[in-house]
Amino acid sequence: MPGNAIKLKNNLKTDKTQGLMLMKRKEFRELVSVEEARKIINSLKVTPEKEYLALENAYGKTLAEDIITEINVPPFPRAVMDGYAVRAEDTYAGSEKVPVKLKLLGNIPAGSDEKFRISAGEAVEIATGAPIPEGADAVVMVEYTYEENETVSVLGAVTAGENIMKAGSDIRKGERVLRRGRKLGTREIGVLASTGKKEVPVLRLPIGIISTGDELVSPGENLTQGKVYDANSYTLYAGVKECGASPLLYGIVKDDENLMEKVLETAISECALILTSGSTSSGSGDVMYRLIDRAGETLAHGVNIKPGKPVVIGVIKSVPIIGLPGNPTSALMIFNEFVAPLLRKSLGAGAGTRKTEKGIMGTDLRSEGRQQLLPVGMVRGRVYPADRGSGAITSLSGADGFIEIPPKTEFIESGTPVEVTLFGEVEKPDLQISGGFCPGLDVLEDLSGLRFRTLYTGSSGGFSAIAAKTADIAGVNLPSKSKGQAEALYNIPIMKNMELSEAVLVRGYRREVGLLVRLDSTIKGLEDLPGKHLINRNRGSGIRALLDLKIEELAGEKEINKKEFTDSIHGYSSGAKSEVAVCEAVLSGKADAGVGLRNCAEKNNDIKFIKIAEEEYDFLIRKEVLDTPEVQKFLQTLGSKEFASKLPAGLQVCERTGEIIYNG
Amino acid sequence: MPGNAIKLKNNLKTDKTQGLMLMKRKEFRELVSVEEARKIINSLKVTPEKEYLALENAYGKTLAEDIITEINVPPFPRAVMDGYAVRAEDTYAGSEKVPVKLKLLGNIPAGSDEKFRISAGEAVEIATGAPIPEGADAVVMVEYTYEENETVSVLGAVTAGENIMKAGSDIRKGERVLRRGRKLGTREIGVLASTGKKEVPVLRLPIGIISTGDELVSPGENLTQGKVYDANSYTLYAGVKECGASPLLYGIVKDDENLMEKVLETAISECALILTSGSTSSGSGDVMYRLIDRAGETLAHGVNIKPGKPVVIGVIKSVPIIGLPGNPTSALMIFNEFVAPLLRKSLGAGAGTRKTEKGIMGTDLRSEGRQQLLPVGMVRGRVYPADRGSGAITSLSGADGFIEIPPKTEFIESGTPVEVTLFGEVEKPDLQISGGFCPGLDVLEDLSGLRFRTLYTGSSGGFSAIAAKTADIAGVNLPSKSKGQAEALYNIPIMKNMELSEAVLVRGYRREVGLLVRLDSTIKGLEDLPGKHLINRNRGSGIRALLDLKIEELAGEKEINKKEFTDSIHGYSSGAKSEVAVCEAVLSGKADAGVGLRNCAEKNNDIKFIKIAEEEYDFLIRKEVLDTPEVQKFLQTLGSKEFASKLPAGLQVCERTGEIIYNG
Repeated sequence: MPGNAIKLKNNLKTDKTQGLMLMKRKEFRELVSVEEARKIINSLKVTPEKEYLALENAYGKTLAEDIITEINVPPFPRAVMDGYAVRAEDTYAGSEKVPVKLKLLGNIPAGSDEKFRISAGEAVEIATGAPIPEGADAVVMVEYTYEENETVSVLGAVTAGENIMKAGSDIRKGERVLRRGRKLGTREIGVLASTGKKEVPVLRLPIGIISTGDELVSPGENLTQGKVYDANSYTLYAGVKECGASPLLYGIVKDDENLMEKVLETAISECALILTSGSTSSGSGDVMYRLIDRAGETLAHGVNIKPGKPVVIGVIKSVPIIGLPGNPTSALMIFNEFVAPLLRKSLGAGAGTRKTEKGIMGTDLRSEGRQQLLPVGMVRGRVYPADRGSGAITSLSGADGFIEIPPKTEFIESGTPVEVTLFGEVEKPDLQISGGFCPGLDVLEDLSGLRFRTLYTGSSGGFSAIAAKTADIAGVNLPSKSKGQAEALYNIPIMKNMELSEAVLVRGYRREVGLLVRLDSTIKGLEDLPGKHLINRNRGSGIRALLDLKIEELAGEKEINKKEFTDSIHGYSSGAKSEVAVCEAVLSGKADAGVGLRNCAEKNNDIKFIKIAEEEYDFLIRKEVLDTPEVQKFLQTLGSKEFASKLPAGLQVCERTGEIIYNG
Repeated sequence: MPGNAIKLKNNLKTDKTQGLMLMKRKEFRELVSVEEARKIINSLKVTPEKEYLALENAYGKTLAEDIITEINVPPFPRAVMDGYAVRAEDTYAGSEKVPVKLKLLGNIPAGSDEKFRISAGEAVEIATGAPIPEGADAVVMVEYTYEENETVSVLGAVTAGENIMKAGSDIRKGERVLRRGRKLGTREIGVLASTGKKEVPVLRLPIGIISTGDELVSPGENLTQGKVYDANSYTLYAGVKECGASPLLYGIVKDDENLMEKVLETAISECALILTSGSTSSGSGDVMYRLIDRAGETLAHGVNIKPGKPVVIGVIKSVPIIGLPGNPTSALMIFNEFVAPLLRKSLGAGAGTRKTEKGIMGTDLRSEGRQQLLPVGMVRGRVYPADRGSGAITSLSGADGFIEIPPKTEFIESGTPVEVTLFGEVEKPDLQISGGFCPGLDVLEDLSGLRFRTLYTGSSGGFSAIAAKTADIAGVNLPSKSKGQAEALYNIPIMKNMELSEAVLVRGYRREVGLLVRLDSTIKGLEDLPGKHLINRNRGSGIRALLDLKIEELAGEKEINKKEFTDSIHGYSSGAKSEVAVCEAVLSGKADAGVGLRNCAEKNNDIKFIKIAEEEYDFLIRKEVLDTPEVQKFLQTLGSKEFASKLPAGLQVCERTGEIIYNG
């Protein structure tokens, strides 16, 4: 591809004299800088309404008004101990040896509305929380008294005010106990309840959410040809909710200006701000931009930060509209970077209420030099890039948030401190796991109670991830066999080749690998493959490597040419990315045989398994994390009897399972 | 009080031969240790149900099942760039100078279900996200093409697979994308939407909440004699919700075993766990304990940690019941310490899912040597005790969480690292402010956008808080006047006396102080007070000190004896804790005059203000925090014109407002 991109397209016109006149396609107008975008967004008027909610429903909401108490707390002077309400001066002479005897008038339990009046030489039994009777100015703790025949003996003196909480000494009537803008947590709810508030004035900030695009269908509906499920409606719904605002879903709107205009009209009449996603790129129609430009005012069209190019900011009938990218990860990043702070600010939170967490880069990172938001995962404070490329939803599931890479940054070194803006409330994983797919990992995760972030990259990818420090652990099953060697060795030779001195290899378990064929297939083994259609696994997969090795062995035994043998198998160079894809190809008849684990066949009633080998699936673990509680827990689970007993069919632990078998 | 407490009470019997036989009252049975309590609570079976929620309502919930995708994501190979779908091999000869010309068959927008088949020399225009047509194996970016008369010219080569995302390369059909027990945040919601899930299996953990006590009434109801508002129903409701469980309120139940049994029966049939609060102390009836003991099994009665003594743990009909203390702060601490981890664990969260934050003690702390949970506030990582004593709701509003003080700890030094268990999601304050009440502080808080945690302690308390480092700033208005001095000096002499070298004094503003009397009062000034009833402010209040000074001046002028003068004023030694209390006493006729700010009279139409002096209300600020952005913002606001213009009546800035006037 040419390095200096020529930007041209569509509706080209020929000019007789000059030959081709290249007309620039309708490009984005001038991109605004991130700072300008922030200014524009900060200038938007997003005005909340006030609503009254029952106290129990107000949790997480923002107070719309100052709360001034109308009562004293406590409302009356009350006993803070079980005991006897007395006049302090009557007890001054009391001692253990010569107790003071007071006449007992009665008993005031908590909540009592009975009225007593205490005079000299009198006392009333009183419970914690009960109102102090008139005339009394102290409470003697029950432990320092005894009671007998309407008389209470006091074994020591109390001073005036002792064991009494004065009316209003906790919260005073007329005091502002909570300020407008305070987010209501458990404590605030407690204060509101204690001061008798049942209906609470809170802010309501209705935010309209519209997904646009002809390719979208709603989750739960049928996925017809060319369609994908709409994720943005739901991620933005959750994101808006997390900010304390009230999301309103307006569904999916096709790339059609008229349709869009109608939906926008409704949303404008009901919302304080509208978020759309999709239909903002100049490629697919740019409906949003044209609409805002026609019906209102465009404030920005494109922000000079990756992925902010498709962002549109405008106002129609004084309701701000922000158009987000269609890609769910991009949409969520732009939402958290620009929109969430606006919502929180509009709900009265202080400035800078971005949810961030400090971490350090866990790997070297090359950047393209352009200002960029990069999705990242965090594991134990270490930050890893989670970008899986164009629109991958796994970028999202693998990310806890994102970092902002400043312009002209081409390299961020491992160990550099970075600040991660979190995707709201996130539960971060305990271990970052890479490598080849194995159902045993699900068992390990379930039994250990650890949360894995698993990215199946194939075994080769696992080795690379450990070398690049982008994973804690990699599951690997790469065989290698030197000439003349009887048995294949697993993983260790590759570690040696790669000089992976920063990792250890822990013995995993054995897996039965074989051909997957239909029940009526005539294929009985590798030797039957020539002339048949095979669906192989992708390059980098250990199972693909194993098949290759087994065919080499077979060729050796039969004294035939390996290349000729594999050339005679249709699709030998194919590469399905998953076992499920392998099974599908076999079941649909597209292939006559595939290669995979016994476990895979067991799950499919219509697939037969023909064992060709047993392989070793081991775990590469970076030394740096070996002693962490998480890795130790992982190893403990791997070595446990329970794990051994719960492995699915075709997987089996061996003697050294869970032990370090090679130190790199 | 005797040091070695004699524990005895009630139903004392006399023994003719021995005189008094002291029968121990029914005391708590053996308290269990914190470790035992944790074990018991961990052994409780709190089993969630499964329910299906619409995706948009599933945010914050916990997955009840593994989510296995039934589709590939993307479901078809799709273009990741706008451009032309081609056979890669057709482009190999393409260059800027000699473009390859391909026949344009048509156009595939995103979401299209039109089917094309590309053969050699053909291309189809394609949008990002659109399905790759059959026969094509690459996409040429639009930037490297131009189009003319049904022909597209390609200016460079692409390789097979370029700009294409394969079907299932993001998420593979049959893959476990989310594990049972995963809490659903924005990302997880995005993954569920992308894989087409509309109804999500989540865990429902119904938790019954019952408040007990004859003294309780619900917020919103009338507060009759001896009653207080029920806070625990609502704090626990919010706390349970915050854990992701489903709270069910059963209201307030009186201290009556029969009533309680009925409510419990209903709750047991509907809940996985029941939380009660109150009625667990041996003083006020101990209804909960007797009930559990009779109808089920008591597992623990009292935990050996302050405030765990009233805690009851039991099981009735295999439903666990935990009785919490009645005091809201204690209830919330015990909830967060023991119950919240149980709820989170029952909902599948990993072990140790307590919300904690590290901090350092901001002040020396004396402890009683008993194992204890102490409510604390956090300001910028510094931890301060927030315990305001028995049942104060301000302990709760002043606390962000609590620390656990180990047994036999008598002293924790300022600077010691501590771990704070948070009261769930908390917004921590920006500044901790102590000292005398002033309506100007509310204005400062509102204008600065800072969040104050204000504890009105009176001016003396403010000086002490700064000395003890338990506040960042204290508002102080303490006058002092040496003999022969014409004018009173404010605050600086006290700083000198206390040798407060770690603080500076910042000039605040002037406040008009005067007598508060009824409209029809004949009182015209201090000289009219003898023979009248005065409601004075509490000791430590600057206004009280000022009144005293003014009377001294008056006595000097009139050459009368000050003591005789004050003795002739009824209630001169009284001490109302707030201005509101002063006004009430005056309005109700209990007092003929009070003392306070002009602002206070302005708010009460029936109170007249008779100015006796102007005082200075300044701010003591600890040097250690002087340069923090929060204090700088505070000072900036204090010195602003906007603040000057918004001060309420009777408060006025002066020339040096906002400046440091004394460096300690």
